[in-house]
Amino acid sequence: MINDFSAVRSASRKLACCSDDEFNAVLLDLADMTESQASELLAANALDLARMDKADPRFDRLQLTEARLRDIAADLRKVASLPSPLGRTLKHNILPNGLELTRVSVPFGVIGIIFEARPNVCFDCFALCLKAGSACVLKGGSDAKDSCTAIVALIHKVLQLHGLPTDSALLLTSHEDTDRLLSARGLVDLIIPRGSSRLINYVRKNARVPVIETGAGVVHCYIDRAADLQKAIPIVVNAKTRRVSVCNALDCLIIHRDRLAGLPAICQPLFDKNVFIEADEDAYKVIQGIAPSLLGRAGGESFGTEFLALRMAVKVVNSLDEALEHIARYGSGHSESIVTEDEEAACRFLNEVDAACVYHNAPTSFTDGAQFGLGAEIGISTQKLHARGPMALEEITTYKWLIKGEGQTRP
Amino acid sequence: MINDFSAVRSASRKLACCSDDEFNAVLLDLADMTESQASELLAANALDLARMDKADPRFDRLQLTEARLRDIAADLRKVASLPSPLGRTLKHNILPNGLELTRVSVPFGVIGIIFEARPNVCFDCFALCLKAGSACVLKGGSDAKDSCTAIVALIHKVLQLHGLPTDSALLLTSHEDTDRLLSARGLVDLIIPRGSSRLINYVRKNARVPVIETGAGVVHCYIDRAADLQKAIPIVVNAKTRRVSVCNALDCLIIHRDRLAGLPAICQPLFDKNVFIEADEDAYKVIQGIAPSLLGRAGGESFGTEFLALRMAVKVVNSLDEALEHIARYGSGHSESIVTEDEEAACRFLNEVDAACVYHNAPTSFTDGAQFGLGAEIGISTQKLHARGPMALEEITTYKWLIKGEGQTRP
Repeated sequence: MINDFSAVRSASRKLACCSDDEFNAVLLDLADMTESQASELLAANALDLARMDKADPRFDRLQLTEARLRDIAADLRKVASLPSPLGRTLKHNILPNGLELTRVSVPFGVIGIIFEARPNVCFDCFALCLKAGSACVLKGGSDAKDSCTAIVALIHKVLQLHGLPTDSALLLTSHEDTDRLLSARGLVDLIIPRGSSRLINYVRKNARVPVIETGAGVVHCYIDRAADLQKAIPIVVNAKTRRVSVCNALDCLIIHRDRLAGLPAICQPLFDKNVFIEADEDAYKVIQGIAPSLLGRAGGESFGTEFLALRMAVKVVNSLDEALEHIARYGSGHSESIVTEDEEAACRFLNEVDAACVYHNAPTSFTDGAQFGLGAEIGISTQKLHARGPMALEEITTYKWLIKGEGQTRP
Repeated sequence: MINDFSAVRSASRKLACCSDDEFNAVLLDLADMTESQASELLAANALDLARMDKADPRFDRLQLTEARLRDIAADLRKVASLPSPLGRTLKHNILPNGLELTRVSVPFGVIGIIFEARPNVCFDCFALCLKAGSACVLKGGSDAKDSCTAIVALIHKVLQLHGLPTDSALLLTSHEDTDRLLSARGLVDLIIPRGSSRLINYVRKNARVPVIETGAGVVHCYIDRAADLQKAIPIVVNAKTRRVSVCNALDCLIIHRDRLAGLPAICQPLFDKNVFIEADEDAYKVIQGIAPSLLGRAGGESFGTEFLALRMAVKVVNSLDEALEHIARYGSGHSESIVTEDEEAACRFLNEVDAACVYHNAPTSFTDGAQFGLGAEIGISTQKLHARGPMALEEITTYKWLIKGEGQTRP
């Protein structure tokens, strides 16, 4: 156990010498074997499922099926088909003294990913890390222990078939392992926690290894004085109700006082979908009576909360400035949007809102690696360092400078 | 005190709306006033100098002179002349549904810099942060308290003249301030510690805000079997002796056994410059007798040490693989170089060494922002996240995604 991270580090040095074709061959074989060995994977998954209450909301995420394994195989083939993120020339410069400098994208080395009881994440993360030239340490939720063990055993089998070190993917399962991972400076280059804010807070507090935080989205949509209501309604409905459990889902509708008359038309389809609304005093007056059982008064917790549920706050403002102020105070820097036909207001909003993704006349539900055309996604970063918003292959590489000379020295 | 970081954060939101011309005007005025008010700055500096022993090696770094202030003014004008790192389109994409996505470079917001008793760093860091659109929190060493206070007062004067918030630069001076800064999540976006490894370790351990580490360089130069000795000698001498106190200075010479006969010719000019050599057994035999008082046997601490002094280790290897292994084990990922005429060996070295800057036939003394043509430098990153190697303006920006639609929704 003591030396398992060293073994992964050694494996990462071997991966750094492999070609994209070698990585793709592994991923394609893994896709085939995921389908051909579905019964073994499902049997292992059944052991995990047997330990979980069917009423637990996590049961569905834990469950693998033949169809889900086919989707996973398709995703693996998709990753194999993407252009390599490695070896890209990011800058090139020949100095007056003849020194040639090239900044080139290279693998991170070893990437640790901490996630909850979702076995498919093993496949996703291994595939993206391998394609990006890195070895990975996978710390899955203990509820998915049997599934993850079977998946990583299959990954090892395919790596071995291709003459690559099985230490390119290491599975950890205990809580003590998490602590070892968080303090493995010099052996692990990057940790990406995926999951609850409790997990992410724990990682932030305890990590000695660089971290990219993912997760919490306190998301706003601002209906400007110059909004087109016909655009606003589907944008708000889509952002709030497409999937309520994801980080890009709308949490707070901000509306300009001059457009309060339009608020019932915006809220009606939300009430129809059983969205509970926590309205500030001014908004409350305008929409009371439509669906009393789904309406409450906004309280101290209404703003700045990520609901992840059929629940939304409404805030009335007197100006764009006030909307910007509210977002600066309560937003989490994830996704924010404005609905307006006023180009100047849109321009100010896009410029001044400090978030990973800032939208004009579109719902925040598009914040997603695949939607953004990145081809895949390993998470959505809510920090500003290294990667912001949806992260895919390029975002899990680093770079180095290569300097070629003929014996020049520095004066 | 409680709200000083909030004030800086508010200032950063104002800076995000300023143009590059406004920043440049501030920097040019600051340059002029640094020269015209030199006597006030020197008087404040004299107070700091009076508290420090002249024999202290830090005395020279603490000292300001008329000539140094002119150099500082020239540097400020240089930064003003650089292209803006902001508003660059990093990616642009129109999706099939018509959504237009643009990834654009934007300011970080608030950048904290922790440094030691070098008053010029106040100017450097303020100038680079402002040009990159960010407010800065400057925590200087307490030995430079009077100098830093006078410099930041001058900065505030110029900001005020230009109608910009004085909170765009905040000076901290106490150790408790450092702790407050390290835990100012949500108010400070990035911290860059510049200084000793003690400082950097403290920051790594205690920061809750994202950090870019700078500093420690355990630097190697490998003389390959196919090295041209006429290139190797000036490369080694330059890397070791140009400036011994900097992080790019050579710490360990690795030499292929087949080239041991050339070792005396490499070491002679080092001995001439009073470099003490800690040689492994095989190297010792070859160079003993040249300068016995400057030669010792390598011990446990010889490898993996950043000397920052006229001192260097020598290690003999049997192969390129062994050299790569030694560097992987003892290097700090800063700068590494190979001297060889064998293109294949060079290619392997450049590819396989995991460091910010990897050199072929050139000395590591070139690892420097200005040398790399970046126009300036705020530090040399030794981590892989966000920025690696010399950091200048682009490296202290982040990005955001701007998404423009016409009311599209996600299926």
